[in-house]
Amino acid sequence: MERHFDQDLQQLKERLLTMGSLAETMIHSAIKALVDRKAELAQDVYRHETEVNALQIEVDDRCLKMIALHQPAASDLRFITAAMKINADLERIADQAVNISQTTEYLLQEPQLKPLIDVPRMAEIAKKMLKDALDSFVERDENLARSVLVRDDQVDELKEQLFRELLTYMISDPSTIKRGIDLILISRNIERIADHATNIAEDVIFVVAGKDIRHHSEEKPSSPPPLSGVHKS
Amino acid sequence: MERHFDQDLQQLKERLLTMGSLAETMIHSAIKALVDRKAELAQDVYRHETEVNALQIEVDDRCLKMIALHQPAASDLRFITAAMKINADLERIADQAVNISQTTEYLLQEPQLKPLIDVPRMAEIAKKMLKDALDSFVERDENLARSVLVRDDQVDELKEQLFRELLTYMISDPSTIKRGIDLILISRNIERIADHATNIAEDVIFVVAGKDIRHHSEEKPSSPPPLSGVHKS
Repeated sequence: MERHFDQDLQQLKERLLTMGSLAETMIHSAIKALVDRKAELAQDVYRHETEVNALQIEVDDRCLKMIALHQPAASDLRFITAAMKINADLERIADQAVNISQTTEYLLQEPQLKPLIDVPRMAEIAKKMLKDALDSFVERDENLARSVLVRDDQVDELKEQLFRELLTYMISDPSTIKRGIDLILISRNIERIADHATNIAEDVIFVVAGKDIRHHSEEKPSSPPPLSGVHKS
Repeated sequence: MERHFDQDLQQLKERLLTMGSLAETMIHSAIKALVDRKAELAQDVYRHETEVNALQIEVDDRCLKMIALHQPAASDLRFITAAMKINADLERIADQAVNISQTTEYLLQEPQLKPLIDVPRMAEIAKKMLKDALDSFVERDENLARSVLVRDDQVDELKEQLFRELLTYMISDPSTIKRGIDLILISRNIERIADHATNIAEDVIFVVAGKDIRHHSEEKPSSPPPLSGVHKS
């Protein structure tokens, strides 16, 4: 029985890592399509979404069966219910990559507004946050999970910087407004990916330390106040 | 034992309904602050957020204890794990209301861009979706849950309508760009509230019908293609 449980646990971790790696690939392709202006890469994103969706249903099913069959004790039960939440976060990260691709397909029908520097940087950080959050889960590594939390602020700073820059373009040339808004929305999609990675890291700390750190601001260094309402949504 | 479980289940439902009703109040106050230009209402939103956060931690804790203590059978186990996911959705809905309030505080420092018609209509629909999704959960009412799913398209249509209108303002008068973007972002916050309500309704159908309808497009009537990338994010 014990061995069966360990095997099931191992397979559960593998499935989540597969989902995470698919989600990373989706983010990578979505941003590459945008930066290199290659619309065909969007197709890869849509194809991977189908795989992530199928895995999401499988993972939920596995978790329910593991609880029903093995009636795990406190720490294992926390691990499995955290896996169900992380599963939902991964599916929503994949959705964000799909949103980026859809917006990109429209953006690529118009001339480039500006060379994109901050967008790929934001995406790199968010992708690494996701990878580290998942690794911290399967390794039960609390320190790695904590390192994810503090990186959320870097994503926010880049988002604000990009916003200020795009606003300048839009105000001086109204023909850039639609493209500017598209890029702002893409930066919000990346921000949400980072938020989901943060959620995962918080779940990990709950599982490993048995301590619920959600909604405790002392876990994150305070960030400077935002410059405008649009930076907070 | 059985009776204890029923009592625990009853209390769990009550907690989720309390959270849902707090979240509805938060959406209501956030939108009222915006439409009536009453910044002080934002404080109500922030105060309620603290209550929702405390309830979120309590609900997760209750669910874990119920599973560990009662080792519920398949259908009850699905109900409790669904409650944990719904709990997470409710907390994120509250976050969206907070985001709306923060943006509103900045918006109210500037003159009104236009009388707001579509924003409160969107919010009304999203609020009703949330209420019905939660009611369908505690009543295990599959039909009510299904009625939530189809309303997502109404929110999307209003969002697109608002977007087109705001774009007209921004292009003809660049001094309105920042306010226009703020309102677009608020409409996205409302859209996400409707998305979370949809997630809850999908969980309910899974619990009640034992059928996972996520990612099955036949559950929703098809919607017309969007007009621009910015409508899809």
